Amino acid sequence: MANSPSGESVVNRVVRLLAAFSDEEPALPLRKLAREANLPVSTVHRLVAELEVEGLLERDAEKRVRHGHRLWELASRGSRAANLREAALPVMEDLLAHSGQHVSLGVLEGTDVLYIERLASDASTVNITRVAGRLPVHGCSAGLVFMAHAPEEEQDRFLHRRLEKLTESTVTDPEQLRGVLAAVRQSGFCSMAGIIVEESSGISVPIFARRGQVVAGLTVIVPLGQEALPAIVPQLKMASRAITRRLGYVPAAPGMQRRSVQSQGRV
Amino acid sequence: MANSPSGESVVNRVVRLLAAFSDEEPALPLRKLAREANLPVSTVHRLVAELEVEGLLERDAEKRVRHGHRLWELASRGSRAANLREAALPVMEDLLAHSGQHVSLGVLEGTDVLYIERLASDASTVNITRVAGRLPVHGCSAGLVFMAHAPEEEQDRFLHRRLEKLTESTVTDPEQLRGVLAAVRQSGFCSMAGIIVEESSGISVPIFARRGQVVAGLTVIVPLGQEALPAIVPQLKMASRAITRRLGYVPAAPGMQRRSVQSQGRV
Repeated sequence: MANSPSGESVVNRVVRLLAAFSDEEPALPLRKLAREANLPVSTVHRLVAELEVEGLLERDAEKRVRHGHRLWELASRGSRAANLREAALPVMEDLLAHSGQHVSLGVLEGTDVLYIERLASDASTVNITRVAGRLPVHGCSAGLVFMAHAPEEEQDRFLHRRLEKLTESTVTDPEQLRGVLAAVRQSGFCSMAGIIVEESSGISVPIFARRGQVVAGLTVIVPLGQEALPAIVPQLKMASRAITRRLGYVPAAPGMQRRSVQSQGRV
Repeated sequence: MANSPSGESVVNRVVRLLAAFSDEEPALPLRKLAREANLPVSTVHRLVAELEVEGLLERDAEKRVRHGHRLWELASRGSRAANLREAALPVMEDLLAHSGQHVSLGVLEGTDVLYIERLASDASTVNITRVAGRLPVHGCSAGLVFMAHAPEEEQDRFLHRRLEKLTESTVTDPEQLRGVLAAVRQSGFCSMAGIIVEESSGISVPIFARRGQVVAGLTVIVPLGQEALPAIVPQLKMASRAITRRLGYVPAAPGMQRRSVQSQGRV
């Protein structure tokens, strides 16, 4: 009932429509929308009308189609991303104030890290993360934090994927990566220099929830060569514990949390 | 093709499914989800499967259904709410730091104000707004700011609606409300004491975009009786102009912006 002759579900076509919009092009004329979504104009015409009735899409003064606030509202209520973000935001502000560096918060989404919040320092370096933007798991310190704490079979799948060399410094060799992941588990943080852009380094720690599950990666982005700023890792670890607590969980005793302090010098 | 025998569109049923989740119940067993959405279990079963394929919904360890991060991502890219929020957030932080009071940002959505951001002061009063929460237009100072700047026919519709008395102080009389709206236009801000909860007052200013259009209301929430704190309104007006500029627009000269300064004492 819900499928077109080509076997696509209505849900799939709706997702393709909604995904055609971006920060660069938040409003699209109907025909352009059809092209971007790769759907017939007649289908788009009908679906847009249905989505307008529900308030998920709307027309601007020039009749271009854009997202309605209702879509954002629907997605935000009961959203884990929104709840995580709300718990983390005040702590991220403190981290920005005391480190003077960009701060970001990401969740694992398939083979990418999806960034759900970022706070930009005026004084610091290039920060290519953006809210609702993605980076590949092997191209950011937060991604490697997720992989370090992932179940063994997920790690194996990751290590056997063909990984793109994004800069000279991107680690793509499976054995070398295995070593990185072990060091991250051991030290409680991940510091990677210039693996996605040459100019900056990311230092990430896991945010733990119930049963030691990693729900997010908290990252400070510093100019290349400043990864060893002595205060960053302790500040990140303090912030991670504060966020865990704000999520309603009790942070593990530092000694139990994968011996996070004793081996900081190793990575 | 996309409609059920009862004439509802698939889009409508998907929206009912997604809207069944809340911050209180972010994960629902399938049968409960069907009840909340008022849809047959078989329909919900099929739609959830389709939404899972797209990543909009997912199952947790207990097989309960919950929002997937992909839904939040879809809604955030190209979202006016997300862009507004991102432009406003640093300015709202400054306002929180310098006023010591709760700060919120709302957009007009039908007959409600939908709150897209809030920053809570530890020291201040009751703040009932929440992110992705709503308040009725006549029950919040931000709503009255929107109405004050709305086209005449929208104002008339608003003034002729039956408005609920939410507290002793809620203004519901059309003639009295007409006076409030005129004063808001005249003074450039709206200060309402205890109109939604007895303990607190809201003071709001419009955020202007292109062509003098009001895109958001910026609010400071203070304890009842402290509406007249002398710095609040100038701080709010500074913040509003800063946000307008961060949205890429040039704020109007103060003299042109509805004579915003000369008659502050009036409301």
